[in-house]
Amino acid sequence: MNEFSLIDQYFSNCNHTRYPATHSIGDDAAIVTPEFGSSLVMTMDTLIEDVHFPIQTSAKDIAHKALAVNLSDLAAMGAEPAWFLLSISLPEVNHTWLQAFSDALKQQADLYQIQLIGGDTCKGALSITIQATGVVQNRPVLRSGAEVGDQIFVTGQLGLAALGLASIQNKLELESSFDKQCRVSLNCPIPQFKVSRVIRQFATSMIDLSDGLLSDLQHILQQSQCGAELFLDQIPMPKYIVEHKVYDYALNSGDDYELCFTVPQPLIEEMKLLLKVHEIKVFHIGEVMEKGLSLYSDKTRKMKLDIHASKGYNHFG
Amino acid sequence: MNEFSLIDQYFSNCNHTRYPATHSIGDDAAIVTPEFGSSLVMTMDTLIEDVHFPIQTSAKDIAHKALAVNLSDLAAMGAEPAWFLLSISLPEVNHTWLQAFSDALKQQADLYQIQLIGGDTCKGALSITIQATGVVQNRPVLRSGAEVGDQIFVTGQLGLAALGLASIQNKLELESSFDKQCRVSLNCPIPQFKVSRVIRQFATSMIDLSDGLLSDLQHILQQSQCGAELFLDQIPMPKYIVEHKVYDYALNSGDDYELCFTVPQPLIEEMKLLLKVHEIKVFHIGEVMEKGLSLYSDKTRKMKLDIHASKGYNHFG
Repeated sequence: MNEFSLIDQYFSNCNHTRYPATHSIGDDAAIVTPEFGSSLVMTMDTLIEDVHFPIQTSAKDIAHKALAVNLSDLAAMGAEPAWFLLSISLPEVNHTWLQAFSDALKQQADLYQIQLIGGDTCKGALSITIQATGVVQNRPVLRSGAEVGDQIFVTGQLGLAALGLASIQNKLELESSFDKQCRVSLNCPIPQFKVSRVIRQFATSMIDLSDGLLSDLQHILQQSQCGAELFLDQIPMPKYIVEHKVYDYALNSGDDYELCFTVPQPLIEEMKLLLKVHEIKVFHIGEVMEKGLSLYSDKTRKMKLDIHASKGYNHFG
Repeated sequence: MNEFSLIDQYFSNCNHTRYPATHSIGDDAAIVTPEFGSSLVMTMDTLIEDVHFPIQTSAKDIAHKALAVNLSDLAAMGAEPAWFLLSISLPEVNHTWLQAFSDALKQQADLYQIQLIGGDTCKGALSITIQATGVVQNRPVLRSGAEVGDQIFVTGQLGLAALGLASIQNKLELESSFDKQCRVSLNCPIPQFKVSRVIRQFATSMIDLSDGLLSDLQHILQQSQCGAELFLDQIPMPKYIVEHKVYDYALNSGDDYELCFTVPQPLIEEMKLLLKVHEIKVFHIGEVMEKGLSLYSDKTRKMKLDIHASKGYNHFG
């Protein structure tokens, strides 16, 4: 068993895409031929055992997450998934593990119609790097387009993944079915293409929440050169966080992979109509201001809250 | 110091390319807009400490090699370098190391006019993954195009890198200046764009020699469904290998990153003329046959040699 047969055996069947590659696995490199007028969106993320996922995470969950975090970046740009490359480093050849990993990878790839076109395998500590490429036919949604007066939205509950991690680390105890929900959120994030496809025509800026709401929103604010006001009671989060007042899980913890985006006030009604047609819910959590970042308890802006100086997950903290 | 400032500080200045990205580092993903009619060639390679480079390899050499092995894949497709993404995993933030790494990376990137457009950094065992994208305006050179009667060439000496590794591992002792040459070959391979730009219009198939001549040539033969005869005395290799009869270093060892390619007999004279104009030397080492892979001591084909069953470097051997 060498790296060539590993690729042939496990990774040569992820072939569904709306954008078939000209040449896929099997040469020095893959070849893709973009359609006229399209731009390509390229992202790459590495997942390392015990850093990005707990030791003993299943092969299925690792595969799911490795692809999902990259797909999430494509969704955050308003792009459609097209191709990906996979580099996988394994301490040993474990066929049970590889079969489960490649099955889950193929399932995710087929679901989002992204084609595996190349990569490599080698021996080393467990680590997965995926480089994903998406296609944008119209304009991509950047972090830099937010303007004062735009309203700020998120696509779903924040803090579930962080609670899941804390539970795995025995830092807290959750009720059984909620615990399961949190762990699924941590291990199997869902790239938000369904929402992205509707809102990308309205959004002036967008980012996926990988490091935490406050930290990630700051990227939008910095690049758009503006500030924001947020309303804590409007931010969707599990009851547990509100009841225990552990808001850091929702505000300053990562791995939720929901989208945060801004929309100009005049477009909101039209967006809401379209979202209703598609049965998609989004949450209005704040407004873009000239500068600073303030957190209020609610929309009345009567009670201003302290924002802890957390800056999201810092790999070298 | 977090991953955002690491990228800003060390990796935001690799900006030279003939194909400037529409958006580079700083968003969820990078955006590139290929010219009409061009295809993109995409490759990704991971380098792990103690697997792909010896422990104690300098930051400069690691950066050089990590980019060069990816560029070599682009050269082997007949592509021009355009963009790359970098994922780097580090056990700790060492500014001296990072500065040397990023300086060398920038030097290589500028030399080959390839733009760093994104990636990520995280904490973990030392490992570097680079995904490189190149542009082909005409046809790419695949592994599958060799035909019976085509002549087989390589672009330079084989075995230097393997001798360098053996020397570092104290498996043999080399004369001082030759030792240095071998270690440079191992640590700082040169992507063969200069040759590729001339021969890509003549070559029917091409591969870069990363795993070893016999192993890599087999990929061409398998994909082109043909065989080959090689002449040992025509294969360029250092005197040391011939004198000590350690031909495995030239035939079955990797990391040379020379190109191996096939050219139809009728095109050879024209190719040679053009190579002469560009002062480039290539080496005629054999011929494509119907099937099998035979090694003769010389072109007379009088003495057939044993080909050891080595299949190149096997990461899981």
